[in-house]
Amino acid sequence: MEFTLEKTDSVSKARAGLLETAHGEIETPAFMPVGTNATVKALSARDVWETGARMVLANAYHLYLRPGTEVIACAGGIHRFANWPGSILTDSGGYQVYSLAGLRKTTDEGVHFKSHLDGSAHMFTPEKVIDIERAIGPDIMMAFDECPPTTQEGNAVPREIVEQAVRRTVAWANRSMERFSGTNTQHGYPQSLFLIAQGGTHRDLRESCALELMAMNADGYAIGGLAVGEPNETMYEVTDWMTEVLPAEKPRYLMGVGTPTDLLESIARGVDMFDCVLPTRNARNGQLFTRDGKINIRNAKWKNDFSPIDSEMNSYASQNFSKAYLAHLFNANEILGLTLATLHNVAFYEQLVREAREKILDGSFAEWKTELIRRVNQVSTRLEAREPG
Amino acid sequence: MEFTLEKTDSVSKARAGLLETAHGEIETPAFMPVGTNATVKALSARDVWETGARMVLANAYHLYLRPGTEVIACAGGIHRFANWPGSILTDSGGYQVYSLAGLRKTTDEGVHFKSHLDGSAHMFTPEKVIDIERAIGPDIMMAFDECPPTTQEGNAVPREIVEQAVRRTVAWANRSMERFSGTNTQHGYPQSLFLIAQGGTHRDLRESCALELMAMNADGYAIGGLAVGEPNETMYEVTDWMTEVLPAEKPRYLMGVGTPTDLLESIARGVDMFDCVLPTRNARNGQLFTRDGKINIRNAKWKNDFSPIDSEMNSYASQNFSKAYLAHLFNANEILGLTLATLHNVAFYEQLVREAREKILDGSFAEWKTELIRRVNQVSTRLEAREPG
Repeated sequence: MEFTLEKTDSVSKARAGLLETAHGEIETPAFMPVGTNATVKALSARDVWETGARMVLANAYHLYLRPGTEVIACAGGIHRFANWPGSILTDSGGYQVYSLAGLRKTTDEGVHFKSHLDGSAHMFTPEKVIDIERAIGPDIMMAFDECPPTTQEGNAVPREIVEQAVRRTVAWANRSMERFSGTNTQHGYPQSLFLIAQGGTHRDLRESCALELMAMNADGYAIGGLAVGEPNETMYEVTDWMTEVLPAEKPRYLMGVGTPTDLLESIARGVDMFDCVLPTRNARNGQLFTRDGKINIRNAKWKNDFSPIDSEMNSYASQNFSKAYLAHLFNANEILGLTLATLHNVAFYEQLVREAREKILDGSFAEWKTELIRRVNQVSTRLEAREPG
Repeated sequence: MEFTLEKTDSVSKARAGLLETAHGEIETPAFMPVGTNATVKALSARDVWETGARMVLANAYHLYLRPGTEVIACAGGIHRFANWPGSILTDSGGYQVYSLAGLRKTTDEGVHFKSHLDGSAHMFTPEKVIDIERAIGPDIMMAFDECPPTTQEGNAVPREIVEQAVRRTVAWANRSMERFSGTNTQHGYPQSLFLIAQGGTHRDLRESCALELMAMNADGYAIGGLAVGEPNETMYEVTDWMTEVLPAEKPRYLMGVGTPTDLLESIARGVDMFDCVLPTRNARNGQLFTRDGKINIRNAKWKNDFSPIDSEMNSYASQNFSKAYLAHLFNANEILGLTLATLHNVAFYEQLVREAREKILDGSFAEWKTELIRRVNQVSTRLEAREPG
């Protein structure tokens, strides 16, 4: 993997870059649609490609449980299994295992957990996760980390918990790097390993974690443990701290983020890569992202609105089908409704980062960002004024 | 609408023809994928187009209830509403209303029924259905008929019931023709009206019904009331009677049929048009049609089968994804599984009728049909030998 920094904005910390993997080029800032189970929910590979996405995220934890690492390895790796012509990054499962409250036990060695599918017992160590990711075959592998909670029984989580998570995350990153360098790609193309910085909302822990990981000279660095319930401003602040510390010449990936506004604010703070379930999950609930804010297609007012889903978006779904038709598909529980809404939302996210990149390159990012954030949020109030939730 | 008979097979009654509507040409024999709610379930319009289908079926009863006739009329008709570039035929709802046992009351005037969606009370008359179909705007409208059951409390339905259904169907056809000729298209392109022959499994009733309808000089004729539980051989026999009587120069449409074998047997008996939910519904249950018979992708044996879904089928789904991947998608309840399976099955049906047409034109239909029926049925036994159901 190669990362080339093309330009850094003069007003903000926003960057435009180019990530090159064995499966092609990814322009940054980049948004990776989430394809947990080796499919971006409701979209075919060619649909995803058409949105402009060139890297998708899959999940090592989910794929290890189903269909099983072996199946994907036998298929010749995840690209061939899913017939995805672009690049793939796999999350390690750290966050998923952390979500299994009550079903897991963490030690310095690793995490014992029970499958959310059938309750079967498993153990993940940093080494085992590297082995799984070697077999699955993404272009970019994420190291196994400990993602601490931000709250515990309603209060801020004690600092000791976060300290322990940072200590383990660093130790596990070391073990991951060692296993990574001691093993080879299994599918004929190179793989890269990114490390994940934790530290909650403590600046000193975040910085020391990042510095320790940077000493390992990984291919890229992720900011983990955000977008887990903290206020937006806190998330932006922590991101700001991290991009002050992380090396300029390596890609920076903010995991699990976020809304269109979150993306723009984080790009302004120097983030290069994102993934989030929002465009896909919200689509399946009938919520569409538009320049004029979010709309809920289940709202009765769309029943007779024959304007395109989004006349400003150049995608098959956005231009060729009316809000009335999409509303009908949702009312009739038709699968095509889920597909068209997802196609639109993912295309919207991809156009957002593509445009951000253009604006960084032509020097107008800051003004564009301010205006777009105003529009996305202000006008949505008008559109949705009569809607609950 | 124009129908041109291009060739009739010298060995069988199979025909190759061309149907021309304001929305393009449809080569016959033709299979119309079912798009009840103005969407072929799980497929986008461009997916359906790619299979080779040029006419789809929608349902006046369903669309009248949801989203409502007015919505589709305001959209500029169903083609624009669903963004389907090809032709559309709407079933009248006769069969759907007949399926609402206990929720309907039929008189000579029409049918009082309760909506299967919300229990609201409605009445369909032949005239009202024409008005609905004028507003919805299909290229071909089906007249409202009475579809008699084949069995009643476990016994063959009494002849009087079938006689009454034929009498009403003929009377309603007359009223439909009158309303049709007294009204105009609402969306700027011509519409045609097809009449539906009933008569159960009584040859004299079938023939007299067909003759009475033929006297009305409709644009095309359908064989209704079959594929409702009678043995296959009975269905083929009734079809044979009907194609002896129906005029050669007009299209013949066998409604709601059927399996690949049913299509081939009916084409051999002179049928030009088909619709059926089998390829779409079975796909959503994981059942795929292949040249080597049906397979159920949920069967454990496909988990590690990395061969294409169907290497003999030239479609995006059939060639580009393995059985193992499709099995994984079904196991993980991923929407893409439904889409790929449907895309494959519809492409399979379209290729079947396309190939039948080629064979009719080159004079080899009879041998090809015999061999294909043998293969589809015999080999499926081998493939599915260990599977229940």
